[in-house]
Amino acid sequence: MRECARRSSLPFLSRRIKYSMAKSSKLTQIQNLLFGRPLATSEERAEHIGPIAGIPIFGLDALSSAAYGPEAALTLLIPLGMLGVRYIVPVSGAIVILLAIVYFSYRQTIEAYPKGGGSYTVASENLGANAGLLAASALMIDYILTAAVGISAGVGALISAVPSLHPYTLQLCLGVLLVLTIVNMRGVHDTGVVFMIPTYLFAGTLLIVIGVGAWHAIGGHAVPVTPLPAMPMATAVLGPWLLLKVFSSGCTAMTGVEAVSNGVMAFRDDTRKNAKITLTIIIVLLAILLIGIALLCKAYGVGATDPNGAQYESVLSMLTRAVMGHGWFYYLTIGSVLLVLALSANTAFADFPRLTRAIAGNNYLPHVFLLRGRRLLYSWGIYVLVALTALLLILFGGVTDRLIPLYAIGAFMAFTLSQAGMVVHWRRKGKSAGRMAMNGLGAVATGVTTLVVLVAKFAEGAWITALLIAVMIVLMRSVKTHYTRVAKETALDRPIAPAEIVEPIVVLPVDQWNRITEKALSFALSMSNDIRCLHVQIADEPDKICQIWEKDVAAPLRKAGKCVPKLEVLNSPYRYVLQPVVEYVLKVEKESDLRKVCVLVPELVVRHWWENLLHNRRADLLKVILLLRGNQRIVVVNIPWYLKRD
Amino acid sequence: MRECARRSSLPFLSRRIKYSMAKSSKLTQIQNLLFGRPLATSEERAEHIGPIAGIPIFGLDALSSAAYGPEAALTLLIPLGMLGVRYIVPVSGAIVILLAIVYFSYRQTIEAYPKGGGSYTVASENLGANAGLLAASALMIDYILTAAVGISAGVGALISAVPSLHPYTLQLCLGVLLVLTIVNMRGVHDTGVVFMIPTYLFAGTLLIVIGVGAWHAIGGHAVPVTPLPAMPMATAVLGPWLLLKVFSSGCTAMTGVEAVSNGVMAFRDDTRKNAKITLTIIIVLLAILLIGIALLCKAYGVGATDPNGAQYESVLSMLTRAVMGHGWFYYLTIGSVLLVLALSANTAFADFPRLTRAIAGNNYLPHVFLLRGRRLLYSWGIYVLVALTALLLILFGGVTDRLIPLYAIGAFMAFTLSQAGMVVHWRRKGKSAGRMAMNGLGAVATGVTTLVVLVAKFAEGAWITALLIAVMIVLMRSVKTHYTRVAKETALDRPIAPAEIVEPIVVLPVDQWNRITEKALSFALSMSNDIRCLHVQIADEPDKICQIWEKDVAAPLRKAGKCVPKLEVLNSPYRYVLQPVVEYVLKVEKESDLRKVCVLVPELVVRHWWENLLHNRRADLLKVILLLRGNQRIVVVNIPWYLKRD
Repeated sequence: MRECARRSSLPFLSRRIKYSMAKSSKLTQIQNLLFGRPLATSEERAEHIGPIAGIPIFGLDALSSAAYGPEAALTLLIPLGMLGVRYIVPVSGAIVILLAIVYFSYRQTIEAYPKGGGSYTVASENLGANAGLLAASALMIDYILTAAVGISAGVGALISAVPSLHPYTLQLCLGVLLVLTIVNMRGVHDTGVVFMIPTYLFAGTLLIVIGVGAWHAIGGHAVPVTPLPAMPMATAVLGPWLLLKVFSSGCTAMTGVEAVSNGVMAFRDDTRKNAKITLTIIIVLLAILLIGIALLCKAYGVGATDPNGAQYESVLSMLTRAVMGHGWFYYLTIGSVLLVLALSANTAFADFPRLTRAIAGNNYLPHVFLLRGRRLLYSWGIYVLVALTALLLILFGGVTDRLIPLYAIGAFMAFTLSQAGMVVHWRRKGKSAGRMAMNGLGAVATGVTTLVVLVAKFAEGAWITALLIAVMIVLMRSVKTHYTRVAKETALDRPIAPAEIVEPIVVLPVDQWNRITEKALSFALSMSNDIRCLHVQIADEPDKICQIWEKDVAAPLRKAGKCVPKLEVLNSPYRYVLQPVVEYVLKVEKESDLRKVCVLVPELVVRHWWENLLHNRRADLLKVILLLRGNQRIVVVNIPWYLKRD
Repeated sequence: MRECARRSSLPFLSRRIKYSMAKSSKLTQIQNLLFGRPLATSEERAEHIGPIAGIPIFGLDALSSAAYGPEAALTLLIPLGMLGVRYIVPVSGAIVILLAIVYFSYRQTIEAYPKGGGSYTVASENLGANAGLLAASALMIDYILTAAVGISAGVGALISAVPSLHPYTLQLCLGVLLVLTIVNMRGVHDTGVVFMIPTYLFAGTLLIVIGVGAWHAIGGHAVPVTPLPAMPMATAVLGPWLLLKVFSSGCTAMTGVEAVSNGVMAFRDDTRKNAKITLTIIIVLLAILLIGIALLCKAYGVGATDPNGAQYESVLSMLTRAVMGHGWFYYLTIGSVLLVLALSANTAFADFPRLTRAIAGNNYLPHVFLLRGRRLLYSWGIYVLVALTALLLILFGGVTDRLIPLYAIGAFMAFTLSQAGMVVHWRRKGKSAGRMAMNGLGAVATGVTTLVVLVAKFAEGAWITALLIAVMIVLMRSVKTHYTRVAKETALDRPIAPAEIVEPIVVLPVDQWNRITEKALSFALSMSNDIRCLHVQIADEPDKICQIWEKDVAAPLRKAGKCVPKLEVLNSPYRYVLQPVVEYVLKVEKESDLRKVCVLVPELVVRHWWENLLHNRRADLLKVILLLRGNQRIVVVNIPWYLKRD
């Protein structure tokens, strides 16, 4: 009970305190229930995962993009009418080829960086700090967008299925964000387990649709089970500019591919092998989904519908019911698509904290990102990601369509820098020209794609991404400057200098003779032989200390052979109490060239918060003022006096 | 610049700090402009006032009640029609007799209590602490109501003159409150000067109206210059209950009379004489106004109009235009009435802080009410009054009619207790039976009136006042209990015990070897020979101190013949940093029975607030946790490290 009362006397800090000191409080029990018990660092190995859990954690983003990448490309092809659907096959083919190049490149990255080779690490180690910061900013922005866009896409799909939920769009988005946060705060291992079912359901049902559809198509009887909306009339022909835009829209299907290489450390045993298996499965699945969807669209004549129109239906929905009919399997498939879209934000949760940790490790972000929380996570990365995602969702009311143009640019910029970095890496190693060529091909392909995406989407909002990247780089550089300066100012490469150990001057403000004063004075006497007791005498107020000083303090100490403190009386015509004390301390400090000045501040610690209202907070104020106006040689000592229990 | 930067590193405290430490900052300049320069205690005499300034300061409340007391009585007489107006003369006569009794009683109080004899002081000194607390609560509530009702009455009158201002009622009320606050924060002297013109204009114009009206009435030609509204038909006859209610409503005219006796100390030279002159003038003026208004109402046939009706016009407005016509003099009179009503709240500003100071002086209210601010005022009394008044105004949207029933009860209860206290006072002095009889008469008269008001208004809301008074008494008693306990626990009536001065155990958390650590360690070595350096080793993190300890710390100190601090390494499997330190400190404290444990907390002081984001606040947190979980023998020493200027 006593702890409780004391704790609440500083209510504004109580949450932080409880977090760090409570051991078995109710709050901790709730925390354990929600997020799991704290994990010791030695339990790290048990948290490591294999490919089966790795696919949901690092692959959700990549796999879920099969649900919107082809649709984004097909939407741009609507004006071409029936003919447009045919172009989706070559466009998807090109994207899958790009995907394959990126895949082989990243396999090599995993091989070379077994401790995690995200674009940031690879770029900064091989291309220099600036290239690293460029990759870092691009990726951080991309992850935050992934989280916001993923959640709002999933909720948007749910709302188009159940329109009565429309008024609760934002609440649903924030609810999904909350679920993701809680699940992720439990740590990598638990997250993998939770997300396994939706991920494999998604991949499984879509593969069945593709398989059945392909069987029919090969058999030559690819007839929709339920009727599809009629294709609109062609109003345009395919020009190079439109093709560019279709390709760059389809490329959103590739975001999230770099996640595995960034998180190699999360895998167990032979981390490289497990990471490579995970990456392979993700890429193969994604390639099958992309090609399968494209071929079936062509075979069944499924085109996109106007996303703003009343008759809107997603491509995957039309495709599923064309192949499988409008039965329970349709609902299972579409349900898993919704779920995976909403959860695709999880890849950001898995990678963003690892990324910020890596950047903070090089002093470009606050060191708080280096701290591992109770579940071995870099908690502050999650906090910041959640805060920024929530901010985006709230700003856009849960509908983040307008953010999509800002999106792929960051991912492709990071791909390019990573591949280019790998080229330098292999050249430095002076061997494996084949690997260098592989990564070189990846760098060129993704570099060209970056340019394509940038040009195609610049006016629509990619310029905002470019601007944000620049701002982030400036900020990160100034953080580094600060840390460098602090390190330089505090660094010490010599042993301690024993000559500098000198007795301090002790200053003790006294108001009247009571137990609190006695305690402080005893402490002062144990520290030094040069003690100045300060009494601020306010005009008109009766003297409370001078008359009893000789009798109660000076004489007994003299008799005991101890040093006798000096009593200095400061008159305060304007009734200020703290100002004379602070000025005296500064004066003493100025006059004594070497010795430290040690100010003792007695303070009363009450048992209930409301009791603070009955006592002035001069002690707190004095401490703050001395901290702000003080300097290297002024030290403050808190002498707390605790009131007894009832 | 450097000060500036440091100050802003703790933004939440910056205002308080500026207040107490800034000497010539811009803020201080604005403060000086608004509230005047700080006054030294020695300048107190120059702040003292004579009767001419005393009347506006202590008389505004009493005088302004002439504007609403008679009206309140007449409103209750409306149902009697033409006949009702006649009863106002005997009712006003009774009130003036009561006023005279109270006047003579308070003259004697001023004589007996030259240092200020408010009801609280007189009752608690003569009738005991409980009677004093009863008077104190009654008066505090009454002053807060005076302030709120006064302001909203003035603004209400303005709005009935200029109806287009109606939407801004609350804003106008708060504006008047702000003006009153600023003027009062300048101190007693300036306040008197500012309020002189409206007060004397109010008294002067009304006296002219009464004089001219009386002249006409005596001449027998009391004919309204402009036509008055017709009197309504009688619908009731006068019964004893109605008479009671009329009398008690009229008694609101007497509130504010005790102000002078409470503020005797504010007068200059012969304080008693000046206070008595001031009281005499106020009472004589008020009596003339009350009787004059009553007689003219009868002579000119002026009755109240329905305050909720569309044709509402105040009694003073009808009377003035009946006597003087609807010219410039009418507007001057009514303007001064509005102004004085709005400013009548000022009496509360003058007396509330003196009252709370007196209560706090007996430890029944927080001691903060004892502090005199820069203009020699008890600033906290003003702050609390302003806050509560603003709260009432905001809660009631600036229309406080419903508060009027809560109103007079407090004033009359205080009157009664004060008079009864004076009876005891004279009896103790054992002389002046005449004086005792005078105060006895006052006590009986006001006591009966209190009962009348309580009975007449109980259902309308006086019960709320009664309840609030009870709550306040309980609160004040618990405040006293707290202070008594603290005084008992900290009191010390023996000299210092030199035997208790023992060297402390010093605990110093160290992270790595740098200048900050060296500074803290040097300080520790100057304090004690028993130093424990604590290093929290988080699993997985590289060791930063153990390897260099012998070389950089232990060896040089041993060579210099100094004590060698012990390095204790605490392993932290769950990566907590503060918890192991706090637990170690508590363990050391428990093991050492007599010595103090002194925890050194090195901390970095940055130059810009945003730099705090780049450093963890573990030092702050450790200090707070040690304060909350610590005990009498744990002392915290802040070792600040200041970053250099650019």
